[in-house]
Amino acid sequence: MHRFFLPLACIQNEIVFFPTEIAHQLKRVLHLREGQVVIVLDNQGMEYEVKLVSSQAHIAQGQILTRRVAQDEPTVRLAFYLCLSQREKFEWMLQKCTEMGVSAFTPVISSRSLVQEPDEVRKKYPRWQKIIQEAAEQSGRGRLPVLYPPLSLEQAVLESRQNHRSAFLLWEGERTLSLHQALTGIFPGQNQLALLVGPEGGFSETEANLAVNAGLLSVSLGRRILRMETAALVASALVLYETGEMNP
Amino acid sequence: MHRFFLPLACIQNEIVFFPTEIAHQLKRVLHLREGQVVIVLDNQGMEYEVKLVSSQAHIAQGQILTRRVAQDEPTVRLAFYLCLSQREKFEWMLQKCTEMGVSAFTPVISSRSLVQEPDEVRKKYPRWQKIIQEAAEQSGRGRLPVLYPPLSLEQAVLESRQNHRSAFLLWEGERTLSLHQALTGIFPGQNQLALLVGPEGGFSETEANLAVNAGLLSVSLGRRILRMETAALVASALVLYETGEMNP
Repeated sequence: MHRFFLPLACIQNEIVFFPTEIAHQLKRVLHLREGQVVIVLDNQGMEYEVKLVSSQAHIAQGQILTRRVAQDEPTVRLAFYLCLSQREKFEWMLQKCTEMGVSAFTPVISSRSLVQEPDEVRKKYPRWQKIIQEAAEQSGRGRLPVLYPPLSLEQAVLESRQNHRSAFLLWEGERTLSLHQALTGIFPGQNQLALLVGPEGGFSETEANLAVNAGLLSVSLGRRILRMETAALVASALVLYETGEMNP
Repeated sequence: MHRFFLPLACIQNEIVFFPTEIAHQLKRVLHLREGQVVIVLDNQGMEYEVKLVSSQAHIAQGQILTRRVAQDEPTVRLAFYLCLSQREKFEWMLQKCTEMGVSAFTPVISSRSLVQEPDEVRKKYPRWQKIIQEAAEQSGRGRLPVLYPPLSLEQAVLESRQNHRSAFLLWEGERTLSLHQALTGIFPGQNQLALLVGPEGGFSETEANLAVNAGLLSVSLGRRILRMETAALVASALVLYETGEMNP
């Protein structure tokens, strides 16, 4: 069933008012008619079965049939700090890691990031927000991952450590600790994790040391060399797997 | 260090003869000079450190400095049976799953595959072979994954079951068994696995039943809906993770 995140203001008592853009999509793209049912999410943790009562090109209304707590949202909160990289790869990571169940993204400017200007990064937020929302709707998420403002690597290191019980650095230079070992003993019980992922070309030695000295745990994904975007997706999958979030 | 899979015939005693295409790449793309060292793989399990002794636009030779068993090849043999789908997605899966460590790919024509003609599929093999080889070289594989001829779904079901101790069907309709549960008890000891992955739109109910009746174990990757290519990559990562192949 088609799913849509809507602003809270669109959901009033038993009635849902679909914004113009979604009304257009319902009518012109999905060819849905009056009487058909969609899922509406309020991004506060509730989901609604909504029957379309009027559907026109620019305006649509629905009637709420049922309401329930959104089912399929992970309980573990996994925050990603992603160093900026080539556009397609970065967008691909936002999409795939949203599908997997990551709860927050913070773009990070490191020494080897292709983009170095925060203002340039902020211009891309509307597009990135849209990619995240579409992936969240398509994959059945109950909440939208949050997209935070860009940080420098130094800021990201401090923040990831301060705001999470466990913070990991994905580092191809790590020769001892596997992600598996790092996760062992953390679960169950702990559900606030941060993961810092380097750009293409990796972290510099200085950056990796900075992170480790600040208390991030440097972890390996094995001996084969994964591209940045593969490593990010795989790491998110492994964390969610270890927490049982990939059980049916 | 740059890595190249070469035909066995190119490796003779202490000398390596680089084929024209690779000679060109060494000289014109990578700008390597006489005296620099690359890794050559024979796809039989050996790797060689090779010093360039002559490097011209169309011809290059190297001298073998050391030879050793290729280090970073997974011991678990994971065979993927991938239903044909949109071109970019299929190629993406070949690339990413090679990076992860999958050992064989068999393209499968199922009822919802976009391509239905084996002859049309075979035309793509040179391109796919190249994608696999580049991903294997870049990620540090010791052997090239094998690309087998295309099969119908019925053939793939039979073959995956007959030739592997365990064969799994990734199925979004599975509501009970997680991949985690399915893998528990298999390792250590078993290292011949097959995984059958559906096309966009999934398997039909009939196809899933056919596979399960033939003895494939249907497994779930959790409640969120993953795109085909995400599911394929994540499943390969989880199998290799469970077998300890993602330890440093």
